[in-house]
Amino acid sequence: MTAKSQHSWTGDPAELLRVGAGFRLADVDPDATPGYDGGRKRSERDLAEGAAELDELQERLFAESRSGATSASVLLVLQAMDSAGKGGIVRHVIGSVDPQGVALTAFKKPTPEELSHDFLWRVERRLPAPGFIGVFDRSHYEDVLIGRVRALAPADEIERRYGAINEFEKRVTDAGTRIVKVMLHISADEQKARLMERLDRPDKHWKYNPGDVDERRLWPQYMDAYQTVFERTSTEHAPWHVVPANAKWYARLAVQALLLDALEGIDPQWPAATFDVAAEKARLAAT
Amino acid sequence: MTAKSQHSWTGDPAELLRVGAGFRLADVDPDATPGYDGGRKRSERDLAEGAAELDELQERLFAESRSGATSASVLLVLQAMDSAGKGGIVRHVIGSVDPQGVALTAFKKPTPEELSHDFLWRVERRLPAPGFIGVFDRSHYEDVLIGRVRALAPADEIERRYGAINEFEKRVTDAGTRIVKVMLHISADEQKARLMERLDRPDKHWKYNPGDVDERRLWPQYMDAYQTVFERTSTEHAPWHVVPANAKWYARLAVQALLLDALEGIDPQWPAATFDVAAEKARLAAT
Repeated sequence: MTAKSQHSWTGDPAELLRVGAGFRLADVDPDATPGYDGGRKRSERDLAEGAAELDELQERLFAESRSGATSASVLLVLQAMDSAGKGGIVRHVIGSVDPQGVALTAFKKPTPEELSHDFLWRVERRLPAPGFIGVFDRSHYEDVLIGRVRALAPADEIERRYGAINEFEKRVTDAGTRIVKVMLHISADEQKARLMERLDRPDKHWKYNPGDVDERRLWPQYMDAYQTVFERTSTEHAPWHVVPANAKWYARLAVQALLLDALEGIDPQWPAATFDVAAEKARLAAT
Repeated sequence: MTAKSQHSWTGDPAELLRVGAGFRLADVDPDATPGYDGGRKRSERDLAEGAAELDELQERLFAESRSGATSASVLLVLQAMDSAGKGGIVRHVIGSVDPQGVALTAFKKPTPEELSHDFLWRVERRLPAPGFIGVFDRSHYEDVLIGRVRALAPADEIERRYGAINEFEKRVTDAGTRIVKVMLHISADEQKARLMERLDRPDKHWKYNPGDVDERRLWPQYMDAYQTVFERTSTEHAPWHVVPANAKWYARLAVQALLLDALEGIDPQWPAATFDVAAEKARLAAT
């Protein structure tokens, strides 16, 4: 289903970008804009129209959840190499939703307390409540990405985690959360240009970390780790979507479309009044 | 100091709206628009320009805090009678800031766990980290507002809390947080009209609670409780501001101006690089 308000799609991004059987990350062109031929300028109008729709759908979902009529929520899981645009997605796509309906978590290097628990412990605690759009900026997938590339855990523990993630996500979706898993895919050359820009601009220095270059040197190993993640954890209940992200405008529009698709799938409705409207009007009028 | 980007102010809202010696809530006209003669239409342009400035100042603050050069943050405390527009402030003023820099807490009726602690316990846990704009939708002031009107605690305990709040807020401001305390002030008639609208519109029913009318009947008692709050807790380090809020556009513009004033007072700067920029460029170029 393509979002009503994003008019220039020629195909359904939820289908076109989904990781299915036989998927190979190496075959994805980070410059591509699958299913959208509106171009950058048109995308801005579509993004603005989609923003209004996303905001209203989330408010409906929030309203319905307050009535107890639904336990549904949406969880956006964002993974990517450095500088691929996670922050831009949060600012420009999530930023259009009422802050009262968003629960954002940026997962950092685990603290000693977090490390003393199973890797899913800190994730479970940050799942969105009914009615909310939860956003994970990085996630439990770090534990099988940098966890694998940097050998932060034994191989058999990494292996165990794929299955644990699938069971976890099945339980979460069964409880009413639609999980939208997105990898923003940029090319190594694009990353180089973006990191160089951060070094060129004093107002961007704070976003640069020398460790970014160390991670960058492991690019092929990360791509391998992502490929394995997709093969092991793109499930029926929580599929992955790989979003070409060299064009920032496309990535934003596509992630918004995936969120709209999830919310339209829930199809939230304004809840019926849980009180006698006429009686309340009379009580209020008497004050 | 008036925000640079909000051009139509004829006075400084941080001064005009501040609760000082001799303040009487009963003397405030909820229809007034102190210090602003731009009108509603002009206010929309000023709000949009202020939004861009607020977003940039917050990003600078966030950046500077990441470098460790500042521990500053801002905390907006929002209090009001039902339907006065707290939600609109969050959506239209806070919503213009990058979600990655906002920490919003909506305080509800305390849970049994929260009640087992001192009333400031749950508040302390939600203070903004350095670099963030924290927002309290309701706050520890509920414990001396509904707490007093509904006699939820003994009179001597309510009395104790004013001093405890002042000491708490002094410690918080000393640690680097600018506290912006705002009461949105509507008239009883305006509330009646807004509650009636919620009853008239099925898409607003979820925002209505029959308890709202019960609280409304205690309007004079609440105004008395607010007056006492202002007298006891409008301090040098954390003054109250009473914002006339019958005109929603004015309230939004005024709260934005107060936040801009707080951030301009911090005057955050892009931090200097903590690495050798030339050396990093060379390292990156070699990849």
